[in-house]
Amino acid sequence: MTEKKQETKKNLKKLGSDVLTQIDKGDNPTLEVPIRTLSNVKYDTTSKMIRMGEGVAKRYFFNVGHVRKFVQTVEAAAVAKELLDVQKHLSLRETFYRMKRTLPNSNINLVDEQEESNAAIEDLELITGSSRELLNINANKLGSVAGKVVVEDKGDTIDWSKLGSGGWSIPSNVEDITFKKVDAKFIVYLEKAAEWERLHEDRVWDKLNCIVISSQGQATRGIRRLLQRLSIEHKLPVYILTDFDAYGWYIYSVIKYGSISLAHISEQLAIPNARFLGLTADDIIKYDLKKHLIKFEEVDLKRLEQVKNYDWFKDNKEWQRQINMMKNEIKGKAELAALTSHGISFISDVYIPGKIKKNDWLD
Amino acid sequence: MTEKKQETKKNLKKLGSDVLTQIDKGDNPTLEVPIRTLSNVKYDTTSKMIRMGEGVAKRYFFNVGHVRKFVQTVEAAAVAKELLDVQKHLSLRETFYRMKRTLPNSNINLVDEQEESNAAIEDLELITGSSRELLNINANKLGSVAGKVVVEDKGDTIDWSKLGSGGWSIPSNVEDITFKKVDAKFIVYLEKAAEWERLHEDRVWDKLNCIVISSQGQATRGIRRLLQRLSIEHKLPVYILTDFDAYGWYIYSVIKYGSISLAHISEQLAIPNARFLGLTADDIIKYDLKKHLIKFEEVDLKRLEQVKNYDWFKDNKEWQRQINMMKNEIKGKAELAALTSHGISFISDVYIPGKIKKNDWLD
Repeated sequence: MTEKKQETKKNLKKLGSDVLTQIDKGDNPTLEVPIRTLSNVKYDTTSKMIRMGEGVAKRYFFNVGHVRKFVQTVEAAAVAKELLDVQKHLSLRETFYRMKRTLPNSNINLVDEQEESNAAIEDLELITGSSRELLNINANKLGSVAGKVVVEDKGDTIDWSKLGSGGWSIPSNVEDITFKKVDAKFIVYLEKAAEWERLHEDRVWDKLNCIVISSQGQATRGIRRLLQRLSIEHKLPVYILTDFDAYGWYIYSVIKYGSISLAHISEQLAIPNARFLGLTADDIIKYDLKKHLIKFEEVDLKRLEQVKNYDWFKDNKEWQRQINMMKNEIKGKAELAALTSHGISFISDVYIPGKIKKNDWLD
Repeated sequence: MTEKKQETKKNLKKLGSDVLTQIDKGDNPTLEVPIRTLSNVKYDTTSKMIRMGEGVAKRYFFNVGHVRKFVQTVEAAAVAKELLDVQKHLSLRETFYRMKRTLPNSNINLVDEQEESNAAIEDLELITGSSRELLNINANKLGSVAGKVVVEDKGDTIDWSKLGSGGWSIPSNVEDITFKKVDAKFIVYLEKAAEWERLHEDRVWDKLNCIVISSQGQATRGIRRLLQRLSIEHKLPVYILTDFDAYGWYIYSVIKYGSISLAHISEQLAIPNARFLGLTADDIIKYDLKKHLIKFEEVDLKRLEQVKNYDWFKDNKEWQRQINMMKNEIKGKAELAALTSHGISFISDVYIPGKIKKNDWLD
């Protein structure tokens, strides 16, 4: 068990013993939970992360309005403790079912909906200071990776450069992985699995000496942690490639700055020095992609306006220029796949190496 | 290049040379394309597959109503030929961009929407008798696999039992994979990645001597081909585990019998002897899951009614019994994850080995 997990276990035990001490003393058992409302979330310009403020709420056992949440949080702690004891993991959904039991001599379920167990787990993350990955509660599993890296995981030694056309399937939880050898110089993250297959077939990770990682749509927590760990532990720059639309740009911003809903865990997920290497408005002109534009739907323009006004984009002159250019000049969206019009491997042979060589990325 | 790919290349060349011969003779160039309308699709009770009928249509170059489709099909053949020549692959979306070029001295694009290139590729599958995987046009990449199997792919030797918590990421196209060693006795397919992680962490593939494969929702073509190849080439029974709802049962039926939209390719995807090991109405009672039922939405009941009336379920007494029981007696849906209520590893230690031992599966 890693040091972090041992600390997590200690914190869970402390939560339990604190409650017991309060009961023994005849006090009203209390939990202190940082407040997770939007008003307590802000973009921190110094750390370049979306973070939670200092607001804390007290939750009492002997309080009709508090007791249900109090008990749910303690139960979530008990399940996490069980998982750490037996060294197993559960998904959020499975944890819900594990917590969903009927209280003795009643017809009251401890949780009725997954929203309740989810909230209890998020509270537990805040109380213990441990992400749910450290609590052995897994997020979604998605994505593939290939590159000049050797990892150790569950007693197996896995060489990311020797896994055929499939690559390594990224686990939902990468906390227990050890990097044995990292020869790569940077990481390329792709929004879509199809582009990953393009780069992998072209052996971009071999030719450019890098790591190629993909998700499908929004990056999972497992992928974000993998990117962050490689970026911090091996000082590798992370290049994000997405389509030319507000959704793609938001995917980039979540990887870089974190997100509002997971603000309490930004330190364990955000990568403030990630770089955007995907399609910009300038690229649409430079790479002659105007004929491959996709018309804006109303929802695209609305999302673009939202992205434009996020704190972490608002003060960034270059991003404001790109956003305005998309809206007023290009007037449409475009996909990375459109680069195929210039040749099957244009993205691998020309676009990526060219942009990296010229430092043609956005911060 | 495999034998099948060489044959595919030959068929593509034949398509081109046939058109050229017709031109040289002064004939109106023609393609014969099997008809892909619903009326030409039926469930074949002998092969236990959803298949296409014998209907064929002629498509002429000198016909205002035909010419666009004619040219698109020939272009799709040209792109596939290019891909086979350089031994690369493209996704459907990338193929669309590759085909989307403006005809000389005009403002007409060869294709404007992906629906057009998709249809041309489907026609090409029918004309050449080769699936688009053999034409080097890839479907979606998704899913993970672990088990007692060693494969060779792209010069790498990959042991599915030594890939840590992640497993092997299944490629979109598994045509070029060679099975070097298959020690497993059967295959377990899971609808959800979270359940795959459950079984993998519990080392079910090791304990029960099997292969564990998952997708997320509907199985991709790559996964279906992988299941089919293992099932045919190594005579492994395939057990399908899905949730207790009409959608899960339909996922099973697609893997087993094929689907209407891909009826022309059933021989290369369907697994007529696949077995359903997922939750049945009997299981809900047997494993005491009634308290974990999820209420029917109107759409669930509608889908259930459709599933009930599909030809391949209609004549199956046991399935009719399960469907009626779900509708009239259980009156709700349930998830595999609910088995967690009986213990973290109940599905791995009790449910799966118990059902397999008792041959408690549905055909």
